[in-house]
Amino acid sequence: MASTSSLTLSQALLARTISHHGSAQSSDHVRLSPPTTFSLPSFSGLKSTNPPKSSSRRPRRLPARNQRQVRAAAVETLDVTTETSLLEKSVNTIRFLAIDAVEKANSGHPGLPMGCAPMGHILYDEVMRYNPKNPYWFNRDRFVLSAGHGCMLQYALLHLAGYDSVLEEDLKQFRQWGSKTPGHPENFETPGVEVTTGPLGQGIANAVGLALAERHLAARYNKPDVEIVDHYTYVILGDGCQMEGISNEASSLAGHWGLGKLIAFYDDNHISIDGDTEIAFTEDVGARFESLGWHVIWVKNGNTGYDDIRAAIKEAKAVKDKPTLIKVTTTIGYGSPNKANSYSVHGSALGAKEVEATRKNLAWPYEPFHVPEDVKKHWSRHVPEGASLETEWNAKFAEYEKKYPEDAAELKSIITGELPAGWEKALPTYTPESPADATRNLSQQNLNALAKVLPGLLGGSADLASSNMTLLKMFGDFQKGTPEERNVRFGVREHGMGSICNGIALHSPGLIPYCATFFVFTDYMRAAIRISALCEGGVIYVMTHDSIGLGEDGPTHQPIEHLASFRAMPNILMLRPADGNETAGAYKVAVLNRKRPSILALSRQKLPQLPGTSIEGVEKGGYIVSDNSSGNKPDVILVGTGSELPIAADAAKELRKEGKAVRVVSLVSWELFDEQSDAYKESVLPAAVTARVSIEAGSTFGWEKIVGSKGKAIGIDRFGASAPAGKIYKEFGLTAEAVIAAAKEVS
Amino acid sequence: MASTSSLTLSQALLARTISHHGSAQSSDHVRLSPPTTFSLPSFSGLKSTNPPKSSSRRPRRLPARNQRQVRAAAVETLDVTTETSLLEKSVNTIRFLAIDAVEKANSGHPGLPMGCAPMGHILYDEVMRYNPKNPYWFNRDRFVLSAGHGCMLQYALLHLAGYDSVLEEDLKQFRQWGSKTPGHPENFETPGVEVTTGPLGQGIANAVGLALAERHLAARYNKPDVEIVDHYTYVILGDGCQMEGISNEASSLAGHWGLGKLIAFYDDNHISIDGDTEIAFTEDVGARFESLGWHVIWVKNGNTGYDDIRAAIKEAKAVKDKPTLIKVTTTIGYGSPNKANSYSVHGSALGAKEVEATRKNLAWPYEPFHVPEDVKKHWSRHVPEGASLETEWNAKFAEYEKKYPEDAAELKSIITGELPAGWEKALPTYTPESPADATRNLSQQNLNALAKVLPGLLGGSADLASSNMTLLKMFGDFQKGTPEERNVRFGVREHGMGSICNGIALHSPGLIPYCATFFVFTDYMRAAIRISALCEGGVIYVMTHDSIGLGEDGPTHQPIEHLASFRAMPNILMLRPADGNETAGAYKVAVLNRKRPSILALSRQKLPQLPGTSIEGVEKGGYIVSDNSSGNKPDVILVGTGSELPIAADAAKELRKEGKAVRVVSLVSWELFDEQSDAYKESVLPAAVTARVSIEAGSTFGWEKIVGSKGKAIGIDRFGASAPAGKIYKEFGLTAEAVIAAAKEVS
Repeated sequence: MASTSSLTLSQALLARTISHHGSAQSSDHVRLSPPTTFSLPSFSGLKSTNPPKSSSRRPRRLPARNQRQVRAAAVETLDVTTETSLLEKSVNTIRFLAIDAVEKANSGHPGLPMGCAPMGHILYDEVMRYNPKNPYWFNRDRFVLSAGHGCMLQYALLHLAGYDSVLEEDLKQFRQWGSKTPGHPENFETPGVEVTTGPLGQGIANAVGLALAERHLAARYNKPDVEIVDHYTYVILGDGCQMEGISNEASSLAGHWGLGKLIAFYDDNHISIDGDTEIAFTEDVGARFESLGWHVIWVKNGNTGYDDIRAAIKEAKAVKDKPTLIKVTTTIGYGSPNKANSYSVHGSALGAKEVEATRKNLAWPYEPFHVPEDVKKHWSRHVPEGASLETEWNAKFAEYEKKYPEDAAELKSIITGELPAGWEKALPTYTPESPADATRNLSQQNLNALAKVLPGLLGGSADLASSNMTLLKMFGDFQKGTPEERNVRFGVREHGMGSICNGIALHSPGLIPYCATFFVFTDYMRAAIRISALCEGGVIYVMTHDSIGLGEDGPTHQPIEHLASFRAMPNILMLRPADGNETAGAYKVAVLNRKRPSILALSRQKLPQLPGTSIEGVEKGGYIVSDNSSGNKPDVILVGTGSELPIAADAAKELRKEGKAVRVVSLVSWELFDEQSDAYKESVLPAAVTARVSIEAGSTFGWEKIVGSKGKAIGIDRFGASAPAGKIYKEFGLTAEAVIAAAKEVS
Repeated sequence: MASTSSLTLSQALLARTISHHGSAQSSDHVRLSPPTTFSLPSFSGLKSTNPPKSSSRRPRRLPARNQRQVRAAAVETLDVTTETSLLEKSVNTIRFLAIDAVEKANSGHPGLPMGCAPMGHILYDEVMRYNPKNPYWFNRDRFVLSAGHGCMLQYALLHLAGYDSVLEEDLKQFRQWGSKTPGHPENFETPGVEVTTGPLGQGIANAVGLALAERHLAARYNKPDVEIVDHYTYVILGDGCQMEGISNEASSLAGHWGLGKLIAFYDDNHISIDGDTEIAFTEDVGARFESLGWHVIWVKNGNTGYDDIRAAIKEAKAVKDKPTLIKVTTTIGYGSPNKANSYSVHGSALGAKEVEATRKNLAWPYEPFHVPEDVKKHWSRHVPEGASLETEWNAKFAEYEKKYPEDAAELKSIITGELPAGWEKALPTYTPESPADATRNLSQQNLNALAKVLPGLLGGSADLASSNMTLLKMFGDFQKGTPEERNVRFGVREHGMGSICNGIALHSPGLIPYCATFFVFTDYMRAAIRISALCEGGVIYVMTHDSIGLGEDGPTHQPIEHLASFRAMPNILMLRPADGNETAGAYKVAVLNRKRPSILALSRQKLPQLPGTSIEGVEKGGYIVSDNSSGNKPDVILVGTGSELPIAADAAKELRKEGKAVRVVSLVSWELFDEQSDAYKESVLPAAVTARVSIEAGSTFGWEKIVGSKGKAIGIDRFGASAPAGKIYKEFGLTAEAVIAAAKEVS
């Protein structure tokens, strides 16, 4: 194809796209109009009567009556200059970039990109609105590859679309040390990747969070005359994602909330790692999604049925009150003559011989990593087009700002993540005279105080709002009819909740999602929490009922190993505040750490307001709460966290009566304490003082680091029990008496 | 009611039940015939045209044509002697036992027992086959209360049925220290409770495991002339269970497997803790289950529609190729005039005033905890009846044993849990000359060797069989048509998999389920693994790809904190074998620990067979692999686990060349090492030798305990990276050079 002709096509497409963007009221993107030779057949979802298209690689000739004038020219150009259509060439470029990168790395997953290249092409080339040179443009459409192992699909698309994060050399460095193209999509490595996927099912739940964020912000900030928030969230998920429980949780919520701008492509390829999905996955996925309140469309030929894919997207956009699942039946490894439609193409390089055979089969004469010039030029319009989209939106925002300065300022702070000046002044403070209270209640005071000053704070509980104390009193429920509200009702879906919050956090830097359940049920959502930590999503996990102190519900509900298990996790803050001031401190830390999630372990039971606790202390992770020693030489150091800090304080009182020099240290966050200077750490826990006793109602695992081999860690290294809390504390030896005895033993 | 009359009824029921048990070929339990006055209306599932029954507390009078002779007498008796029916009296007894126990404890969940008492009564009194005096009788029907918070329902039923585990004083000790009636059902505390529930969704998945076990054993051991394995699995689950992703995972598998003898009651009461389920749960549950391949029936009046419940059970039993969900619409807290149908009755005591009002409303004149004599007598038949059931089955088994001695011996070992003599001789052994191999491959050699000698070994992977290396080569797949096979295909459903395995493990002491995924994805199933540990389910978790050693898949797939997180968990063995002998040792330990689950962390990458490793060493948890010191005084001790043990060994070689006395210790299981004598521990890690270096490709959290404050722990306290494994090891400093340098630094 001569460069002039492709320019013609490119310009035509550009004109068609850009020229309509002024009329932003229409949420039905005009780019859906077929940009090449294909017409839009009538389509009616599952009842579609379109037979699967033949897999001919020639562009189908359509009856003249279906062709509109503007497209005829382009068709002519295409037919004259090239044997295969440019569209198909682009799709095959995606396939071969994936094949070549996996082959070079000798590691990776070529099957999905080969099967999903058509839908990928249509999304990134025809449907989605984005600006390659600013991957963080606020109003961009979001794309999530929930089947993250197929990341070469996304890298190829980002490359073609003109993102600087994925240049040719990045493709060649696929899965190599320090590259921008790791083995699964990682938002913190690759601008243009929205979230971190790979662990199956996370992506679809993230996408629900992204769509929730759009819906919420649109409801809060759009005006009758300015639609300032307006984008779609697209996701591709596979059979593996569908089998995971988290996807059902999140999808049930998406249906409940009626997230109409969430459009999910289910890559229905009948193959998973163990072979045909028939061996473990025979449910009717479409019917399940309908039962969850989704609109469902089946594209029977996802390999070459480009028009069907386009029509499905159009239909999906027309359904505004429900999310849409487009089940796209594809052939995994499409194009590979000997490995397509088999599990062998899922997760390994094709091998030189099969790559060759695939090149022949798809008539692909090019060198590895080659992007044909006409394809390159075709895609090149996305850079200017994306720039225009952003410029246009910026102009709209400027207008919005003039008309609605307060809303604009608030929205801006959500977009940029800049916290409002002086926000931390809203944090409540307490004195030892303040009434004793459970830290879960103190947490609610903080949440409600912060909600007034942080426009991006929103969240809720997994059906435990009245136990976790997470309701924001000045707001109603985020629901289908009231998406502007900020109390999110997640139902008993911890895993989906965590992952939805990751999506919210990664939607806009100023969105601060919090979510809640009993601390022990972090086990249900641990995979999502780990991704928060990895993807730098600053989610606040409000985890109440944080020990045997919850009492009668018994060992299934009593966390034991959970504090230790999170202290061992990278890039997360495990905070266990002891009273009001420490709870406020924990919130201050949590809000400030926008790239690190925080877990707040909070008590069910009442705790006294302790003298000596402070927000500043919490910010250092560990600090002296009380001390009657001098010269940094106490006889013994008592270390506690959360609900056991008052026990340590009580023991200290008794020991001091007996003439001992006793220091009480609150170790509210080990991670923050670790980050302090050596001098500070020495000032709190002097190396010379080996007489140390710790008390915490949880596993002693890891406490040797603090108390040393000569100290003693009081904790719980068995499962809990069902009984009133006070009784369990006593029976388990978590008492001031035990601390006193241990202190005497070690000092 | 005079005792004679109730005896009449009781005897009639007893006769009706016992007399038919000889004809064991019929799997349609004869006790389904209505034992009281009610007829069986025609019923056709969701299309039922029966309107909800009125909530009148009087027994409904039925047209004479619907009553058969045998029942007429009973009706007469009932009507003569009591205002309310005995049935209803029994149901109210259940309700008030729950109300009274929760009231006395001032803690607990009365709402579910009050709403589910009718189905509970029908199950335990009319439908289920069990022997109260031997809760472990092998062929009993299994009952699981997935909505475990409603445990007073089950305790009341066990009490009425005559189980010794729940006497009146136990009910009075509900939720108290040391009682048999903890706040959620715990199989290890209360004989008669099959599994441990409370964390929502676990129970339904456990039930799938129980039903799988029955199906599997029946397929293996039943003969055309003797049906020796033949029981149902019943489960009650609530809205909370339904929202949890795990229930969808497990239910999808149950549908796929066609587990016809699994019958689940969905307590559809429209209330969860946060209020009406409308706020977060509006999906069509029935349609979802149909999409999962279940038979679905809706009982619209679960409060008083006894006949509808009975008919539904009959219909469910008639459907033999699908599990059945009976959606039973109930009123939470039924009978409480002011709190029924509200969240306030879900999880708190009613309070004295409302208890009084409920007594009045249900015309209940009795003292707290009182079981009316007629109710007591009515239920008393279950003790002799249960004894007969077991005796009968024992006779059948004796006959079976004569005809099929080998099968009988095998089945017996599964029933009793007694391992076949000499089984451990099947474990493969290795020498340093054996070829280097990944421990995941060595694991497969062990699994295949053990499958030959352990009749109860069965399991599989969450769609990673070819990566986890878990296929048993001499067996096919456990599928609908081949339930006698032992390779279970779980699909990508880790959480459901773990919980199904808990059900299998708790079905029979000799069933040894194993399940597999990548180690990092224990995060998806952690709640199930914790329940394994708590419920004493000896599941073997085969967790491969156990570190950055998996390479290119990157940080989403690379475990870091996982070893530490399980070392902190009570009652679980975390094993990380280094080579063939250690893998065999890990399997020996795992098989022997039938009341403690084991997690085997296994490498993707090849590892050498090390001199000095042994099965016996593994059994001690930690042991000396090599040493050139004398007098228990090495210059330095190098400690490693799994794939880093060879790195420690390499470093030792170098250090020894430089004249150092170096000990290499394998710390394959911290828990087992902790359990050794102080003398043994001192012989491996002498207190006087503080020069210690550890190396493990995971978090260093917790290693201070081993290396002490003067030692050094080499590990990874950040997330991993996507690159070839060797490269990551080098970049992360997990090398023999680093160990050597550290050894020089500390010694």
